[in-house]
Amino acid sequence: MSAATQDHYTPANMPDSRPEASYSINLTTGAHVRQACRYGVHTTTTAGLAKTFIQANLIILPSRYASDFRLLCARNPVPCPLIAESEEVGRWDAVKSWISGLNGHDVLGSVDIRRDAPKYMVYKDNKLLKSHCDDLTAEWTEDHVAFVIGCSFSFESALSEAALSPRHVIMNRTVPMYRTNIPLCPAGVFTGSTYVVSMRPYKKSDIENVRTITRSFAMTHGEPIAWSWDAIARLGIKDIDIPDWGTAPLAGDGGRFGALFGNDDDVPVFWGCGVTPQEAVMRADLKGTIMGHAPGHMLVLDCRDWDIVTKS
Amino acid sequence: MSAATQDHYTPANMPDSRPEASYSINLTTGAHVRQACRYGVHTTTTAGLAKTFIQANLIILPSRYASDFRLLCARNPVPCPLIAESEEVGRWDAVKSWISGLNGHDVLGSVDIRRDAPKYMVYKDNKLLKSHCDDLTAEWTEDHVAFVIGCSFSFESALSEAALSPRHVIMNRTVPMYRTNIPLCPAGVFTGSTYVVSMRPYKKSDIENVRTITRSFAMTHGEPIAWSWDAIARLGIKDIDIPDWGTAPLAGDGGRFGALFGNDDDVPVFWGCGVTPQEAVMRADLKGTIMGHAPGHMLVLDCRDWDIVTKS
Repeated sequence: MSAATQDHYTPANMPDSRPEASYSINLTTGAHVRQACRYGVHTTTTAGLAKTFIQANLIILPSRYASDFRLLCARNPVPCPLIAESEEVGRWDAVKSWISGLNGHDVLGSVDIRRDAPKYMVYKDNKLLKSHCDDLTAEWTEDHVAFVIGCSFSFESALSEAALSPRHVIMNRTVPMYRTNIPLCPAGVFTGSTYVVSMRPYKKSDIENVRTITRSFAMTHGEPIAWSWDAIARLGIKDIDIPDWGTAPLAGDGGRFGALFGNDDDVPVFWGCGVTPQEAVMRADLKGTIMGHAPGHMLVLDCRDWDIVTKS
Repeated sequence: MSAATQDHYTPANMPDSRPEASYSINLTTGAHVRQACRYGVHTTTTAGLAKTFIQANLIILPSRYASDFRLLCARNPVPCPLIAESEEVGRWDAVKSWISGLNGHDVLGSVDIRRDAPKYMVYKDNKLLKSHCDDLTAEWTEDHVAFVIGCSFSFESALSEAALSPRHVIMNRTVPMYRTNIPLCPAGVFTGSTYVVSMRPYKKSDIENVRTITRSFAMTHGEPIAWSWDAIARLGIKDIDIPDWGTAPLAGDGGRFGALFGNDDDVPVFWGCGVTPQEAVMRADLKGTIMGHAPGHMLVLDCRDWDIVTKS
């Protein structure tokens, strides 16, 4: 066992058996984070944990909506990159994946999807039932199917390595996200939805580098879908200062775009965002119990950033 | 050999050896049509030929653009469904395919991509060099890659079988096609392009049936992307009476929508269209020699409509 995995959590060293204050927490792998969440040791956001391990969005639906949701992802792979799903209806302990070179076990080995994210949201008949609850053991049924969807953390690491850290990362904020008027291709019950995008400002002269670096991350939104000031209107974003989720570019520092637009020649660069499929699910007004991770409280996988990079 | 294949073309019974007037042409399979095109026997549109055999769009690019084009299709699978591509750079005689259950040989067995469509278009440095030429033997180089892209003929047959024949089929016209303002997700050199859509009018009460029937044709655009009169404005279509390609809905019969909108409760239904990737290629202003089939003069494959239907 390597030094990096010696702090691995097991039920034996969870809070029940040792006082919490005595822990030296070292969540360096996806399996570490999942076990720490499973046993209530880690309960906050997953930002910065288990670097290079892929963090993912989680959407859990009644089985009758599964084929339509799968098709929604297939038809809209940029905002809805489906990495894996329950191996069978009702399975919370194993996933399957169609990603080239990965099978379900590579994506998620030992897992309890009901407990392995730090916090969850539960909706009943499209109304919020529980916010930021610790687990889904009471709500999960034999009829549920879990879907694991890529998020942009992976390419942010790659950008940072190329000295192109996104501004919100440097400033320790949440990336601003916006609803757009770009329609998703409908799929069955999922109609009338639009792209949600995340925004990172970059100098015009850096945009081709930023595109190239993020291009190969096909399972985590890939290259930007739009860039430039003109793009704001084209995407139907009403006010770039007022994101629908995340931290406003303006907040705190005064001056238009003071916080996230640091340079006069910065322009907004927009990527497909994993909030898109969540919005599509809410918009579809589904019956029954729908579940997902709480914002920022992701499911951390066993596969690494480089496992899902597309070779061109 | 079955009765249906006894009129199969071989070089021995081509025009050189027998007078053309003596032929009893019976192009019942993809291989028949391709051979008839290859030897100059069939030189007109492929509409109605070799029923249930998939007809496809053809785009041929210099190899340096191949990975970007492949990514464009992967990011925009609804308007750009990539069925197969040259097995290696420079290969005009074999394709590979990633479609589940199909390999290159199942898609196209014996093929000469340079000669097996009835008519071709050739562009040099983004300018039209040859229109409706018979073959590409002079232009094809060892650096070219051919891409085979689905078209909507397949689902039209399925609609007709369900007594939902598209109006333009009944009236023996070309489906009307429109540019939209819906952006494609960019990929490398392919930026700034938008969806092209085809339009078929249906009664409101038939739309859910039409959606269900076309949904499983994932490799030939699948279910509609928009429907209703409101959709015209949402897609940015300026005038439904003036398509950018195909036959105007109005033409011939007088009265607004007289020709293609037969009932008062008909509404326009829009699908992703295979002209989209052609438009994206033209918009990218590529250098070198680009080739494709001439409109309506498709490459007919060996696989059948039901081979590429998605099981849900």
